[in-house]
Amino acid sequence: MPQEFVLTRRVHFSETDRAGVLYFAHYYRFMEETEHAFWRSLGVPVVMGIGQGETSWPRVATSCEHFAPVRFDDELELALRVVKVGHKSVTYEVEFRCDGKRIALGRMTAVYCTIADDQFRPRVIPDAVRDKLEERLE
Amino acid sequence: MPQEFVLTRRVHFSETDRAGVLYFAHYYRFMEETEHAFWRSLGVPVVMGIGQGETSWPRVATSCEHFAPVRFDDELELALRVVKVGHKSVTYEVEFRCDGKRIALGRMTAVYCTIADDQFRPRVIPDAVRDKLEERLE
Amino acid sequence: MPQEFVLTRRVHFSETDRAGVLYFAHYYRFMEETEHAFWRSLGVPVVMGIGQGETSWPRVATSCEHFAPVRFDDELELALRVVKVGHKSVTYEVEFRCDGKRIALGRMTAVYCTIADDQFRPRVIPDAVRDKLEERLE
Amino acid sequence: MPQEFVLTRRVHFSETDRAGVLYFAHYYRFMEETEHAFWRSLGVPVVMGIGQGETSWPRVATSCEHFAPVRFDDELELALRVVKVGHKSVTYEVEFRCDGKRIALGRMTAVYCTIADDQFRPRVIPDAVRDKLEERLE
Repeated sequence: MPQEFVLTRRVHFSETDRAGVLYFAHYYRFMEETEHAFWRSLGVPVVMGIGQGETSWPRVATSCEHFAPVRFDDELELALRVVKVGHKSVTYEVEFRCDGKRIALGRMTAVYCTIADDQFRPRVIPDAVRDKLEERLE
Repeated sequence: MPQEFVLTRRVHFSETDRAGVLYFAHYYRFMEETEHAFWRSLGVPVVMGIGQGETSWPRVATSCEHFAPVRFDDELELALRVVKVGHKSVTYEVEFRCDGKRIALGRMTAVYCTIADDQFRPRVIPDAVRDKLEERLE
Repeated sequence: MPQEFVLTRRVHFSETDRAGVLYFAHYYRFMEETEHAFWRSLGVPVVMGIGQGETSWPRVATSCEHFAPVRFDDELELALRVVKVGHKSVTYEVEFRCDGKRIALGRMTAVYCTIADDQFRPRVIPDAVRDKLEERLE
Repeated sequence: MPQEFVLTRRVHFSETDRAGVLYFAHYYRFMEETEHAFWRSLGVPVVMGIGQGETSWPRVATSCEHFAPVRFDDELELALRVVKVGHKSVTYEVEFRCDGKRIALGRMTAVYCTIADDQFRPRVIPDAVRDKLEERLE
């Protein structure tokens, strides 16, 4: 059953810039925080130990469109949807909302990798993890 | 004459993450630093006072593709090209290179705005500024 | 009645560094987030409009001692205590705890200021605000 | 011969906050950037491989006093002095200057550690490194 996962998050003072608004690069941190809260809701660790290495989800493509600014202390709804599940990657969209208004729309593609000897190697997503992602697929 | 503008920049310790690499959201800060160094090279202030308000260039769309990671103390070449000049907006591409290898390719569209009473209002880019951008247009 | 104010906060991936731990400068952001949550709990806005300017609390002195590292996804207890209320300033201590263990101890002194024409001017803290701070004073 | 090491560094847009000034926590990042440039000037790597682990310099105490704000694009002089060299630790002071004026004074103590199995273990600073630090001691 497709459904969005929503995280609520205020804009901190440290995340504003001299124009008085949430600095654009921080939208990407917010997107990842939403993804990580989503994983936690699924009971899947973001970082998993496999053999001697560990796994992670480096981003290979990210983007964001901005429709309106938000400011210090604004409470945002960050709504994540899984839009594509590949063999080794997953693509999310995160809609930023404030007071019922769409503020921004972000997208990111992350690849399931093992890290060993400082090398990232893409891996097939384990079935147990894939099943959980596909349940949320639109 | 189309040409790229290049900024050289090391990866700081504070910009790495637990996977040992430059954290993805910081690529967007690096893109903006390159843009601002580009403006400085043109002799155009990033923030200009006009009447009572001031002008700025909020981003309306940004994106980045990642091809390889970079690490603490790596020296990056950030090569900016102006790819589109609109009436009120400009689009850049920034190529990230390390040791002659393409690491990432970013893109951002910024809109020329005045800020007054906390409102951003898009404005036509002044001719003197547009001329400098168009000289660099590919 | 002296008592501490406690905020619970996880360490985000973006806040770790290549040594795998919460990057030291982010402790200061956590301290300010705790302070701002504390103000919210008192019903006092962090930024107040007064006449044409607004007020803010710039920091004049900050410090932190570190006893043990924390890592991605660790859940921290951030315990704020008001340790001094001056005419124009307030000093806090924030204890960082993880799994019942003291991780770090921070301190910051903020001055009540108006900002007008880009100038910060220290002001006497209004009685209504001072009363709330003094109630929490140890 | 005691002498200060000076790094010149502009304030980036991303480092300002809604009050229009360099956000206080970033002063600590600037201090570390100065330290790392200092190490580079000495020809000593910040991170060294020793056996299977590697070494790093985690901070155990940091502090900063602020005398005046700085703003976007201001060019800072960051002047580092070695003020104490212990068996396993070093203490620096970093003076922040802008237009010949003292803006802030920071201090940090870092401990020489090996990192193995996610554990930081303090070590005696190697003589070759200590000698270089002591030459700069006031």
